[in-house]
Parts: sequence; C-alpha cells; structure tokens
Amino acid sequence: MDRNGEVSIALGLRSAEAASEWRSQLQQALPQARIVDDAPDAPAADYAVLWRPQAGFFSRQPRLSAVFAAGAGVDWLLADTSLPAGLPVFRIEDGGMAEQMAAYCVHEVLRRHYRVDRYEAQQREAQWREWPYLSPAGCTVGVFGLGKMGEPIARALASLGFSVRGYARSARALEGVECFDESHGLERFLSGCQMLVLAAPLTPATRDRFDATRLACLPRGAWLINVARGELVREEALLAALDAGHLAGASLDVFRTEPLPPDHRLWRHPSVRITPHVAAITVIAESARQVATRVLQLRAGQTPSGLVDRGRAY
Amino acid sequence: MDRNGEVSIALGLRSAEAASEWRSQLQQALPQARIVDDAPDAPAADYAVLWRPQAGFFSRQPRLSAVFAAGAGVDWLLADTSLPAGLPVFRIEDGGMAEQMAAYCVHEVLRRHYRVDRYEAQQREAQWREWPYLSPAGCTVGVFGLGKMGEPIARALASLGFSVRGYARSARALEGVECFDESHGLERFLSGCQMLVLAAPLTPATRDRFDATRLACLPRGAWLINVARGELVREEALLAALDAGHLAGASLDVFRTEPLPPDHRLWRHPSVRITPHVAAITVIAESARQVATRVLQLRAGQTPSGLVDRGRAY
Repeated sequence: MDRNGEVSIALGLRSAEAASEWRSQLQQALPQARIVDDAPDAPAADYAVLWRPQAGFFSRQPRLSAVFAAGAGVDWLLADTSLPAGLPVFRIEDGGMAEQMAAYCVHEVLRRHYRVDRYEAQQREAQWREWPYLSPAGCTVGVFGLGKMGEPIARALASLGFSVRGYARSARALEGVECFDESHGLERFLSGCQMLVLAAPLTPATRDRFDATRLACLPRGAWLINVARGELVREEALLAALDAGHLAGASLDVFRTEPLPPDHRLWRHPSVRITPHVAAITVIAESARQVATRVLQLRAGQTPSGLVDRGRAY
Repeated sequence: MDRNGEVSIALGLRSAEAASEWRSQLQQALPQARIVDDAPDAPAADYAVLWRPQAGFFSRQPRLSAVFAAGAGVDWLLADTSLPAGLPVFRIEDGGMAEQMAAYCVHEVLRRHYRVDRYEAQQREAQWREWPYLSPAGCTVGVFGLGKMGEPIARALASLGFSVRGYARSARALEGVECFDESHGLERFLSGCQMLVLAAPLTPATRDRFDATRLACLPRGAWLINVARGELVREEALLAALDAGHLAGASLDVFRTEPLPPDHRLWRHPSVRITPHVAAITVIAESARQVATRVLQLRAGQTPSGLVDRGRAY
C-alpha cells in the first residue's frame, strides 16, 4: 500500500482479452486500486490476480501480500515452484461457476438418461418411435467431490428426480443425497453409479484416481462426466474402458493436455462428447467483485474466505 | 357395481401393449376389480380408462359412472361427440409426467443457451474454441400455461438461474417467476421471451393461438419449445417464421398430425428438433394407482381430484 492509501493489484493472466476485462471490472469494483500489468518494469504491487502467469512472475512481483487465483482450481498455481512459501492464496468461490457447471452436468445427464441421441438419430430418418419410460429415480448418478462445485451439481440432479450419491473425503450430510466418504471406500461408491460426475479439485489424492481399476468398479454401461481436471483420469484406461464397452460413453470438458491436440483419439471417439473446458467459465465481473471485497477485508485485518490450504491443496 | 361388491373397469386404449400394462397395474392396485377389454360382447363396466378409444366405445359401455383419461390432456376425449353429456371425466394429475416434461424443457433450454450445438459441431472438426459466457439470468424463458405441467417447468428453469416468466389465464403468484395473465396481454408477455415453452392444455382458447401474428411478437432469434399439443401452433406460420430467421429454431414434441408424416417438412428443417410425443410418457404404474384411489373414493361417495371442467376444457 502506498502513502496515500492506494492499493495496487498486478495482473498475471494468460490472455490479453482476459487481462483487459479484469482490468476494467477490477477498476469498477475498486476505484481506488491501481491495476498494473505484468511487465519487467512493473511497479511492485500489493496483490495479484493470476491465471497461469508467464514464468518469472513472482520474481517480478516480490512484495505481494496475497494472490487471487482467477478460477476455482488452484492446482496449476500450487504446482508452480516459484510461488513463495507462505504467500496466502485465495481462490474464487463459485462466482457464477457452480451454476454453469451444474447446468453442464444436468444437460449431459438428461441427454443420456432420456436417450436424446436416439431421438436425434430417429429424426434424421424421419422415424416416429417412442422408447419406454425410464424413471430418473431408477438411475443413480454419483458425484465425486461435494465441494463448492459438487454440491450444487448433486442438488440440481436430485431436484430432477435422479437418485444421487456423493463422495467426499470426510463425512458429509446433504439432504436428498446419499453421502459416501473414505470410510465406505471409493469402490463401493462407484459400484452403484450408472453415471459418474467428477467434480473434485486436482490434488495429490485425486491425481490419476480414475485408473483402469477404479473405472472397472463402475457398472457396465456407465457414463462418465468430467468437469474437474483431466489429470483425475488415466486417459488410456478411459479409452480402453470405452473401447471394451464397459463404459457406454463420456462427456469430457477437461483433459490432461489442453487444448486437446487435434489428433487425439478422444476427439473422434464415437462415444465421447467433448467441450473445450467451458463447463465453468470464470465470470470476470463477479470474480472481480470477490477480489475487491477480499482486498478490503485484508486491509481491514480480517480473514476473507476462500483461503487455500496448501496442505490439502484446495 | 355387481352384487358382491366387485367393481369393473373397462379399458379403451389405443395400443394392445398399453392395455396389457394397464390391466396388470390396475389389477395390482385394485385386486377386487374386474378388468374388461373393449369388445362387442364386453360386460357393462362401472368405470373406464381411456386413451383415444375405438369408435363406438361409449355405445358398447352404456353404464359407465365415470371415465379416466390415461394422460394429462383430455382434448381428444372432449372432442368425441359420442362422449355422454354429464359423464364425469377425470384426468391423470402429474403421475410422473410433470417431472419428465420439466426434464425435457430443461434439456432443450440448456442446449440452446449453452450453445451445445456449436460445441458438437466443433468436436466434429476437432476444434478447441471457447465461446464467451452468457449469464442464464440474462435469458428470459417464458412458460405459456402455469398448470400441473407448466409450474414445475417454470420452477426447474428458475432454479438453474434463468429469468422465467409465466403466462396463465388468470392471475397467479409463483416465487421466482414473473407472472402474466390476460390483463397484461399475451403480446406483452411474448415480447420479452428469448425462449418460449408451450405447456397449456388444448382448449378452444388455446387452439391456433400461436399464429403468424403471435409468433411475430417474439423477439428475433427466439426459440420455441412445444410440449403441449400441436394444435396450439399454426405449423405453416411456424415454418415461415423459421425460414425467415425470425425464430432461431424450435424443439417440438407434439404435432397437428401424429405420427408426424414422414414427408412433413418439419422432420428435415435444419433448425427444428423433433421428438415423437415423448416429453411426458404416461407412467402406467403410477397412473393406475391414481385410478384405483379415485375409484375407491367415488364408491365411498367422495369427490376425487382431477375432475375435468368441460366448460374450460381441462
């Protein structure tokens, strides 16, 4: 903070478009702030808003007292070896993202359960044929991760009549959702999921968790939806389970390599639906308001919510 | 009712499959009932379960004291000139159908709002491209008809963050839904709907209501979803509005002629999504339980719910 009470916030964002939008929204939410772009000669700022910044960001900004990740996941930031130890990291909490993610999952679950693909195929043949009713209560959808993203997904699916079960590290109670945790075992949770939504952060505990063994725990014909991080799933194991017909299909928004390389098999697999990491787009206006609120709280000596626990990695 | 207290129920259903399922479910729900099929020599029954029965049904069943329509809409039954005046008509109330219909509408609205079709097209080209975020709160979805079907549709859409307005004949209050009625005028209601869901019964007041003039009240680029009855919409006017680009597209589950003839232009219109009247399939088990409950109420001299007011036609 400089002499006249001004606060400065550095932007370390991947795209120039996003930086421009963040600059304008932050300025609106916090008119007294000085917003500085990432540059070799940038003045030392008090705070930073980050999304996969250019290498060397932290050496160019040595006086930060806290940083804000411009998204819900912070795996990329905690994996950055140049992140100073002890520097408080905050993540966006919801900020309009949970709503989008729930909408994405609801769409994919409804599409699968109500056999929309079949009706689309019939339309191409001008074929009028009704398929028998299947009750959503008879379809169990599992949500892996019951945090800020997983919980609204579970609630939205339950409100549409699906039988929903959720898995969290530690015991949870959520109305209308059968809750599982480590004491029950992931395998038992998975064995009842006709559809499975991955909505947990990427941490050492979730990385590669969905390998051939875990995918085999799902019942035959299950459908996987991944809106979390590509690294939760072993892609070769997923492709093998799809090829073998053990999984009926998958809706994937996240991948181990993004953008997904054009020649990647997943793009053209007939049972895979692909979106380019858009299930939850950061709503910059709302996120900037969150950053502004937290900056004011920090300056007033309060502890804002959204502080990342580096030990558990989210 | 015959001497030993037995009750008999005649089935007048269109398909043999449905008749067989109704027979088995009714027998289970009401073990003391005698279920009779529609036939020239069928014994005279006390009640009937009907779905577009064969011509002459009512002359073959002259002693009915009430009939149950095996679905939510009763337009086909009230249009039957052989239906005896004064014979009480009951309709299935919900019976699992509203849940399905809400799911259908939610799917189509999410698909349109979140530009699922674009991402599908991009997948075919292995193209990784994100489209900007559009807030669901910035999208107004109108629901025409706020009855047993319309209300759950409006609620489900509101819970996903959409701005929802509803239109009913008479004034309604629904939390989270901006309610319009005849005093506001249909045109004013329509002028703000980026998507419009038709969920009203077919009555003399709703037949042909969505003609060229009313469709023109929708803003340019609107999307129509019809889960009510085909007769609410003038199909030539709809096709003209689609061809002119005034409407961006339509999701249609119901048609003026069903099955939709294979050579009908709607099947192959690039902006039209077609399903074969499956947005709400009658859940026979649940509907049979409703009929059983009502038969027992009628025999006990009570008035069950679901009685159709022939004057208003639903």
